[in-house]
Amino acid sequence: MEVSVIIIIAMSILSLITAAVFTSKVVTIKVGGVDGKDTPQDEKLKTISAAIAEGAMAFLMREYKVISIFIAVMTVVIFFLLDNPKTPDFNEGLFTAIAFISGAIISCFSGFIGMRIATMGNVRTAQAAKESISKAFRVAFDSGAVMGFGLIGMAVLGLIALFLIFTGSYPGVEKHVLMEALAGFGLGGSSVALFARVGGGIYTKAADVGADLVGKVEKGIPEDDPRNPATIADNVGDNVGDIAGMGADLFGSAAEATCAALVIGATATALSGNTDALLYPVLISAFGIPACLLTTFFARVKEGGSVEGTLKGQLWISTVIVAAVMYFVTTRFMVPFEIAGKQITPMDVYYCLVLGLFSGMFIGMITEYFTSHSYKPVREVADACNTGAATNIIYGLALGYKSSVVPVVLLVITIVGSSMLAGMYGIAIAALGMISTIAIGLTIDAYGPVSDNAGGIAEMAELGKDVRDRTDTLDAAGNTTAAVGKGFAIGSAALTSLALFAAFITRSRLQDSSIGTIELLDPLVFGGLLFGAMLPFIFSAFTMKSVGDAAKDMVEEVRRQFKTIPGLMEGTGKPDYKKCVDISTTAALREMIPPGLLVILSPLLVGWLFGIKCLAGMLAGALVSGVVLAISSANSGGAWDNAKKYIEAAGKKGTDLHKAAVVGDTVGDPFKDTSGPAINILIKLMAIISLVFVEFFVTHGGLLTK
Amino acid sequence: MEVSVIIIIAMSILSLITAAVFTSKVVTIKVGGVDGKDTPQDEKLKTISAAIAEGAMAFLMREYKVISIFIAVMTVVIFFLLDNPKTPDFNEGLFTAIAFISGAIISCFSGFIGMRIATMGNVRTAQAAKESISKAFRVAFDSGAVMGFGLIGMAVLGLIALFLIFTGSYPGVEKHVLMEALAGFGLGGSSVALFARVGGGIYTKAADVGADLVGKVEKGIPEDDPRNPATIADNVGDNVGDIAGMGADLFGSAAEATCAALVIGATATALSGNTDALLYPVLISAFGIPACLLTTFFARVKEGGSVEGTLKGQLWISTVIVAAVMYFVTTRFMVPFEIAGKQITPMDVYYCLVLGLFSGMFIGMITEYFTSHSYKPVREVADACNTGAATNIIYGLALGYKSSVVPVVLLVITIVGSSMLAGMYGIAIAALGMISTIAIGLTIDAYGPVSDNAGGIAEMAELGKDVRDRTDTLDAAGNTTAAVGKGFAIGSAALTSLALFAAFITRSRLQDSSIGTIELLDPLVFGGLLFGAMLPFIFSAFTMKSVGDAAKDMVEEVRRQFKTIPGLMEGTGKPDYKKCVDISTTAALREMIPPGLLVILSPLLVGWLFGIKCLAGMLAGALVSGVVLAISSANSGGAWDNAKKYIEAAGKKGTDLHKAAVVGDTVGDPFKDTSGPAINILIKLMAIISLVFVEFFVTHGGLLTK
Repeated sequence: MEVSVIIIIAMSILSLITAAVFTSKVVTIKVGGVDGKDTPQDEKLKTISAAIAEGAMAFLMREYKVISIFIAVMTVVIFFLLDNPKTPDFNEGLFTAIAFISGAIISCFSGFIGMRIATMGNVRTAQAAKESISKAFRVAFDSGAVMGFGLIGMAVLGLIALFLIFTGSYPGVEKHVLMEALAGFGLGGSSVALFARVGGGIYTKAADVGADLVGKVEKGIPEDDPRNPATIADNVGDNVGDIAGMGADLFGSAAEATCAALVIGATATALSGNTDALLYPVLISAFGIPACLLTTFFARVKEGGSVEGTLKGQLWISTVIVAAVMYFVTTRFMVPFEIAGKQITPMDVYYCLVLGLFSGMFIGMITEYFTSHSYKPVREVADACNTGAATNIIYGLALGYKSSVVPVVLLVITIVGSSMLAGMYGIAIAALGMISTIAIGLTIDAYGPVSDNAGGIAEMAELGKDVRDRTDTLDAAGNTTAAVGKGFAIGSAALTSLALFAAFITRSRLQDSSIGTIELLDPLVFGGLLFGAMLPFIFSAFTMKSVGDAAKDMVEEVRRQFKTIPGLMEGTGKPDYKKCVDISTTAALREMIPPGLLVILSPLLVGWLFGIKCLAGMLAGALVSGVVLAISSANSGGAWDNAKKYIEAAGKKGTDLHKAAVVGDTVGDPFKDTSGPAINILIKLMAIISLVFVEFFVTHGGLLTK
Repeated sequence: MEVSVIIIIAMSILSLITAAVFTSKVVTIKVGGVDGKDTPQDEKLKTISAAIAEGAMAFLMREYKVISIFIAVMTVVIFFLLDNPKTPDFNEGLFTAIAFISGAIISCFSGFIGMRIATMGNVRTAQAAKESISKAFRVAFDSGAVMGFGLIGMAVLGLIALFLIFTGSYPGVEKHVLMEALAGFGLGGSSVALFARVGGGIYTKAADVGADLVGKVEKGIPEDDPRNPATIADNVGDNVGDIAGMGADLFGSAAEATCAALVIGATATALSGNTDALLYPVLISAFGIPACLLTTFFARVKEGGSVEGTLKGQLWISTVIVAAVMYFVTTRFMVPFEIAGKQITPMDVYYCLVLGLFSGMFIGMITEYFTSHSYKPVREVADACNTGAATNIIYGLALGYKSSVVPVVLLVITIVGSSMLAGMYGIAIAALGMISTIAIGLTIDAYGPVSDNAGGIAEMAELGKDVRDRTDTLDAAGNTTAAVGKGFAIGSAALTSLALFAAFITRSRLQDSSIGTIELLDPLVFGGLLFGAMLPFIFSAFTMKSVGDAAKDMVEEVRRQFKTIPGLMEGTGKPDYKKCVDISTTAALREMIPPGLLVILSPLLVGWLFGIKCLAGMLAGALVSGVVLAISSANSGGAWDNAKKYIEAAGKKGTDLHKAAVVGDTVGDPFKDTSGPAINILIKLMAIISLVFVEFFVTHGGLLTK
């Protein structure tokens, strides 16, 4: 067995052990009073957190039921559509289907683990906040780390297992054919991500908007007030959207970028003949694990210290460690090779990785600049609230549009730079570089909803003001890093889908040499480009309207409860939380279907009816307009949220100014947490579908244009 | 002299005579009381309309001063940068500069004429509304027709004059080189359009938003109330934005699409050797003139008849007549020819024209469906106001995104269809087909602000309720057709810029055969694509924020006047209208500079630094994302406007529901009248700059990538 294989297996096991250790650190914390004597507040703490956990699990189970139907159908489609006549010995349909199911199951399982620990971590963070901020911080951080390390560990282990099975069973089949079947793993992960992101995004925002519109706006009660019937659904939503959704999204990015790199790499003789070098993309993720583990030892917040500083420090430390470690990994495992007539050295590949790694950091930083109220842009938006909600919306949208400039320029530099260094392989490596610190990235992402939930639980359980202040501090830092995380997610999605797109074109040319260049001015390519550019918009329209519809149902239910349940407003009546959880769940599952079908069917139908060139145009169009729209949506939403917080921090809650800010915040909710992030999945999933079904398109595609 | 030349000159003179006749019909209407005895209301009528006319002219003059500086600089740039070493006898810089100045002057002059007649027509429409709706309708229609026929007459005459001068002076120079110099005419027209659209758009919305925020929202006085200091500026704005801006925009489309068709056509031997066939693109516009003139005889509204029906009927009648006439024109003047190895028959060309013509109509119709409150989409948005301003915004944005699907599909069909029929020449012809009914289109577009102004003047002069009812009826119909007109403008901009783009690529390949294919996956092309896709967003951000900033100045001034002028609210004090006109003027002129520079410099710098392939990617990216963003912005804005009107029509003015709708309307103002339409110019202007400077890019381009 090659050294690389042993290292990869060892590292993934290390990652799983790390996750297990963090799990035990979290779950062993006892919730309740000292000496087992619970105060009434402790009782509340337990019942509320149990309700959140129950709601979250109930949603997840129902969501997975829908997903499993989809997976079953898709497996059949894959099995029957994929049959490579050039490799009669190798049943590509079967092996792609196996990889697909593996990817889907691992993604689901990661989501499950993440949610489970998050819904245990939230209450324990609140519990620890009774003592000190430094303890509470560490509980939230550790809960996030379970997700971070668990997910990447399983992803790497799954990939290497499939790699060994495929190459072991069919040593005679060309590597790039095997790697294409392996791409089914990415497809599986991304399919789950589609539903997790879209369904989760609709769930969380329907609950949030519904809770706010009646609770805050109509009844004038604070956020997370236990009298609000939608408050449990709102807290469940944070987990569903930001943990399961974000986890599946980044799992997809990691799996897909790896598959793209493997497919492109396998077309180079020097790599396909050298397992260590071929597995380089997996080694990036594998060596990211110890680098991130080392980083976690620096995750300490002293009393009065900056939580935000610690979290951002985590990103910087892991980035620097990975950059250093990967230098040695590259020189040790990479070999010089040739792709499309271009000579590429190991150092070229290393520079691509570093380019991706640092451009991700800069995208995150610029995202923070545009969405934190420490800087001018958000303050301008807050200032625009002086002339009402309309100017707030206008300024916020303009801010979002404007905020796309620097990330786009950074992506262009990364794309041009890495492909000049190492062709299309370079882009895949840059994508992997950007998410090589994924374990820390996910830890921080999951930290956010855990501490947000902790605050909600503390409020609902009526814990003391000191506790609530501590959870507020933790939560505020989480909001900032959430914006950074979104920037990362979009940037890596852009590079990943470009890498997949490149792999798709590379493979289709290998299958059918008559495909040749994809000429931009070819009417089918340009038509595809224009059609593709429209897709992110219609996809956003679907998801935004879904949130609107679901929120309306929620508003009516909450209004109904306030009207019909006696003593609810006075705190003597008990709200029916379950009914609200149920509304969000049902709406999310119902509304995720149409956008899901749009994403899956568009590439399949366009490729089948109009051929590979039109499909290539469509992918490119969706990618470029999707990236800009995703960045704008996420940043407009983040800016409105923080403009409102800025106004609140100035003690202007309840003024007309604040009311105008709340309108912006509510509009921003589906922007930043539903439609924006879901575009990541749109562009990646369409690209990987094209890659997985490339055989089918080459053989049967272009029905109407042949 | 060829038959085609004689016909073109004759038709353009016919067009100018038609404009003159309509002018005299309008100006001979006497304003004031019967027998020259003016009531106090008549006096008011005169002073108010004089103030609007004065404000409009003042703005136009100051705008033209800025534009003339730009034109002077650009002329120098053109003169020195363009020097084709392959044609030493022909000074391309000089002739392009001549064409450029001609285009700019004609565009300015058209805008001037249109504004002049509109500011005379508005008060006369109000005057005629004292008698009957059918008379008032005809006055507004005739005022619009002056713009419609005057503009296309001058455009065609200018084009043919330059054509004759160029080909007459240099019979030995290849036709496609001469046609490229002629493209300067399109650049001149479009440069003026840039400032007219952006400046006009900022002017009108700063005034509108400012007037509404204080007048309607804070003071609770109706629109166009004479006590509102911003009301004159608001009425001036309608003319500035919708007449001068729209006119320059469509003038640009017509001139540019013609230039693109001439450049591409001139590369075919069969066309460059046959002046009648070469001039076919100009013949389309020329024969559109009598077709549109014939149509105007059907423009009658009976008492109680449908104004909207008559206006839409005009579009249909002219479309059918043009389709019929062009069949004979095509068979008489077109010849079979070959472009890029493809055999093209006259009927192929005719089908392209018809495809453009009818897809324009369908885009207009679908635009109406999404923006009129007679249909479901707008009613859903109105319904969303029940849960507040935030859901109104969410639904309106989703509506805009969704409304792009059908227009994009129609454009894709037109692009793929026409280029399958006649290559890139076909796309240019389809673009010309779409605006072949431009005289009627512009008439209807200009009709809108004239009747809107008539209503405003009637309100301010406190004319009777019956008069005001009649002008309201005229205005309502104008709102619907304005949406249709915007659909047309975007559709034709998309096709025009694609045609220009194709001409740019065709010409650059002729100059430098090493350019070859523009491979989509080439990193420079893809980098350009992503960068280009971002441009419409940043451009929108600029213009939206400009409106916001200018509106804020306006709000403060109006608030100040209400506070400091004694008796203003009671109607005894006199507002300082001039100050508000001045604020809008200054803001518009100041704020149009940065977006203007963005549009001009982006293609020049990208082409110079990164070469033709990167520039091609950028143009394609801006085109595809720009089209979708422009359609979305225009339709979201239109839908919010009409959702508010729907709620008002239901008698719910002043309710919370209505307040939520007003927020949407205010957000929509810069969307639909500033940033949306300005994107048309963005995509066309960048494409024509690339075409005009193709010599420079071939010779000196790609400084950093060579």
